[in-house]
Parts: sequence; C-alpha cells; structure tokens
Amino acid sequence: MDYIEIIGFSAATLTTAAFLPQVYKTWKTKDVSGLSLPMLFMFFIGVFLWLVYGVYKESPSMISANAVTVVSAFFLVYFKIKYGKK
Amino acid sequence: MDYIEIIGFSAATLTTAAFLPQVYKTWKTKDVSGLSLPMLFMFFIGVFLWLVYGVYKESPSMISANAVTVVSAFFLVYFKIKYGKK
Repeated sequence: MDYIEIIGFSAATLTTAAFLPQVYKTWKTKDVSGLSLPMLFMFFIGVFLWLVYGVYKESPSMISANAVTVVSAFFLVYFKIKYGKK
Repeated sequence: MDYIEIIGFSAATLTTAAFLPQVYKTWKTKDVSGLSLPMLFMFFIGVFLWLVYGVYKESPSMISANAVTVVSAFFLVYFKIKYGKK
C-alpha cells in the first residue's frame, strides 16, 4: 500500500469512527428529535455520490469510508421516518 | 470540467450543506451538551487528513469540500472547549 493510501485510510477510519456512535445512539434511544430529515437525506445522497466518485477515482480509502457511511446514513434516514412519526 | 468532477462537486455541496446547519445551530445556541469532544477532535483530524489526501489526488471537489469542513469542525471543537466548561 502506498503512503497516500495510509493517509486516506487514517482519514477514513477517523471520520467513520466519529460518525458511527451517532447511528448507534439513535438506534438505542430512538430519539430522532434532533435530526432533520431533509438534512439527513441530503447527507445520504451526498455520501452516495462520494462513493461513486471514489469508485471512478479508484480510491480504496474513499470507497471503504463511503460504503460504511452510506449504509449508516441510510439507517438514520430510516430511523427518522420510522420513529419521527410517534 | 469533466463529468466525474460534477459528481464530486455535487457530493461536496450536499455533504457540506448537511453539516453547516449543525455548526450554525451550535454557534447560536451555545448548546454543546450533545457533542462529544473526543469525537469532534477525531472528526477534525480525519477531515484534515482527507484534505491532505485530496491535495495528493489533485481532486478539486475533495479539496473544496474538506477545506470548508475542516474549518467548521475546528469551530465545533473550539465551541465545545469554550462553552462546555460552563
């Protein structure tokens, strides 16, 4: 693995690790009051486009980071729709 | 501008636009109780490394997105340290 991919994977690990506790907290508490659906949806689409971009750029760190985050963001959108109605 | 950079800039615009209202809300309300300092700091370092990665990859969309987000993340760390003590 080359030097720049080590930086990329460090970046991927840090930003993903900082985001996952939010998903876990929302899943456990079902408290979605502080989350905005339009914003979550924008974020989900944005991360999906980063994933497409990473595939085109053939960047292993972008692909892995955004693959994890797009799934997490999808769950947040789902939780907001499911629990937001109550 | 080539096709893939349009996807990159769309991704950059969406993920940055989804993040900025959080920074604005924290700045206005000074409510940092829901924010975790270690997580913010990890995120800040992670985004900084993505910026370095974007520079190496010569990716205009990664550079612009992460330049905006690294400044935003810095302010969140600053707000947490400043207002978290009260």
